[in-house]
Amino acid sequence: MKRFAIRCTQALVCAVTISLSYAQTPVFRPATDFTLVGKILPTLQVYHRVDTTQHPDMPPAVKRLVTNSTGLAIAFKTNSTTISAKWCTSSRKTLPNMTAIAYEGLDLYIKKDGRWQFAGIGRPNGDCTESTLVSNMAEGEKECLLYLPLYDETVSLEIGVEAGATIQPSPDPFRKRILMYGSSILQGASASRPGMAYPARLSRDTGLNFLNLGLSGSAKMEKAVADMIATVSADAFVLDCVPNSSPEEIRERTAYLVNTIRKHHPKVPILVIPRTVREHGAFDQKVGDGVKAQNEQIKQEVAKLLRSGVKDLYLLSYDKGLGNDHEGTVDGAHPNDLGFDRMLQELKPQFLSIFRKYHLLLD
Amino acid sequence: MKRFAIRCTQALVCAVTISLSYAQTPVFRPATDFTLVGKILPTLQVYHRVDTTQHPDMPPAVKRLVTNSTGLAIAFKTNSTTISAKWCTSSRKTLPNMTAIAYEGLDLYIKKDGRWQFAGIGRPNGDCTESTLVSNMAEGEKECLLYLPLYDETVSLEIGVEAGATIQPSPDPFRKRILMYGSSILQGASASRPGMAYPARLSRDTGLNFLNLGLSGSAKMEKAVADMIATVSADAFVLDCVPNSSPEEIRERTAYLVNTIRKHHPKVPILVIPRTVREHGAFDQKVGDGVKAQNEQIKQEVAKLLRSGVKDLYLLSYDKGLGNDHEGTVDGAHPNDLGFDRMLQELKPQFLSIFRKYHLLLD
Repeated sequence: MKRFAIRCTQALVCAVTISLSYAQTPVFRPATDFTLVGKILPTLQVYHRVDTTQHPDMPPAVKRLVTNSTGLAIAFKTNSTTISAKWCTSSRKTLPNMTAIAYEGLDLYIKKDGRWQFAGIGRPNGDCTESTLVSNMAEGEKECLLYLPLYDETVSLEIGVEAGATIQPSPDPFRKRILMYGSSILQGASASRPGMAYPARLSRDTGLNFLNLGLSGSAKMEKAVADMIATVSADAFVLDCVPNSSPEEIRERTAYLVNTIRKHHPKVPILVIPRTVREHGAFDQKVGDGVKAQNEQIKQEVAKLLRSGVKDLYLLSYDKGLGNDHEGTVDGAHPNDLGFDRMLQELKPQFLSIFRKYHLLLD
Repeated sequence: MKRFAIRCTQALVCAVTISLSYAQTPVFRPATDFTLVGKILPTLQVYHRVDTTQHPDMPPAVKRLVTNSTGLAIAFKTNSTTISAKWCTSSRKTLPNMTAIAYEGLDLYIKKDGRWQFAGIGRPNGDCTESTLVSNMAEGEKECLLYLPLYDETVSLEIGVEAGATIQPSPDPFRKRILMYGSSILQGASASRPGMAYPARLSRDTGLNFLNLGLSGSAKMEKAVADMIATVSADAFVLDCVPNSSPEEIRERTAYLVNTIRKHHPKVPILVIPRTVREHGAFDQKVGDGVKAQNEQIKQEVAKLLRSGVKDLYLLSYDKGLGNDHEGTVDGAHPNDLGFDRMLQELKPQFLSIFRKYHLLLD
């Protein structure tokens, strides 16, 4: 009887152990089973932004950059109390002005009281990582949005939930399509994590789908890129190219970009962010003069286009920039989250005011 | 005559080339020739914060962390139009929730119109780097403050100026000594660059010398650490230990820390930051409950000390925390620059109000 009792106890311990370990081992599903948010154009590799074989004349740097998963997110619902992820990125190393979480990590938001709220990050550890994003959550269904790496190629992604938990695609939470074309700043340098890139913040704040065509160092308005952009289905275009374009490039290329978009999208608003900030330009006179020339040139080009009769074209005001304490960047050029917050305080009301005119808002 | 002219031209070209290349090669001086700002205690290795041989009972993690150059800066004046640096750090790798610039890079401020203003960064590239921090500046003398890496050991540092330029120590720009003892948040995770750590921002904003004894993951108020802290010469102490101390540690150790400081510094104010924020604790109930227990415990301990008659002890209010949009961290626990900005908006007026009572301010 005693031996039987011991055996029973052993069996029970064993069963509990198996059950616990079973409960603790996530069951992974490919993220392609769920809803991909923020997609600009169809691609063969699902986490690329543009299919470069369709636009062979684009510069090599642009072709490389559109493989970055910037601005993409996965929408899903689950009743799991833990959410995990397994993902692989390319072998590229994080830039010194970014966190690895932003560069090649994940960022999870969950809907709470009707608003998207930060819930956890996927901390990268080399090129392939398995990481718990959040655990110990209450029972019940959660609507989730998982942002992908900003500056790396996402080679694969799986989402893990508890065994027995449900997980299914949820609808794209954002409506309409606002294509944003710009520099590293748009691509998310140097937000602290993927969900803090400024188009991602705008989408969560407004419910509109801001699509991120940030091309680090390469938003130079080349003809082939302008032709590609014009093929994108969008309800509005925002151009934030000043940081990467020389005054000459701005003079020579702005009209082609705007006119090409206009030709393919006769009525959509085109918004131009008219300025970039280089905080170190307060001391480095060459940088300061260069930025001043860029900022003046874009205003002249947009003014010319408006005079030539281009309609629905808007030069935004961006006078406050990143604030007046000069603390809004990581390196002079790239906003930190404080700089991005100030940038949005100035730009967001203008976006909303213009989009309201075009009936892009629900209210 | 023609041959003579050619020779003259060649000589002139040669002289100009040598002169340009001479002008472009910085002349380096050890940073120890200038003024070291932010030093907590004397050390053998100049960029360590505490001499661990003097405090052998401190935990190994604390001994390692005090070798980080957090909060140290070099004050100097130069009329050079370019400022460069050569520095080496340990072989440790940047954490995923920090930029390499913050972890092991440099951050230069220059006085402009009576205020410290960001001027340029030293972008790390491996363990030893030579980097131009700022160039193309106007002629004239500049008062400079160069912040050292937040999370690495600075093994060596040299500052480079143009050949023929002057460079000399300038006085410590900050007055009085406010010792801040705390966690990774105090040490600067996850400010975007060294000068954005919150004590550094406080020093520039107030003119007071906030000394950074941030110990990532290790602000646990151990007896040996409390004994070391009490030996620091300071006009005020700020304790930000809640993030790293369990409720039990808070219960068992707060009184010893406060009483030991008080014993060695009978009249100085001791300020306690009464709370930490864990944004993921909104979903992770275990994290949420843990933080709540820590935050409640510290209030009880300070209340007990006040009831027991300890004077000049202040429990700050920190209700707004990192804001109400939950966007103020990189990973739930560590503020990004937006979170730090909100933290200072709440805490700085309280610091100033208390320090004014103790005549620590100039006004």
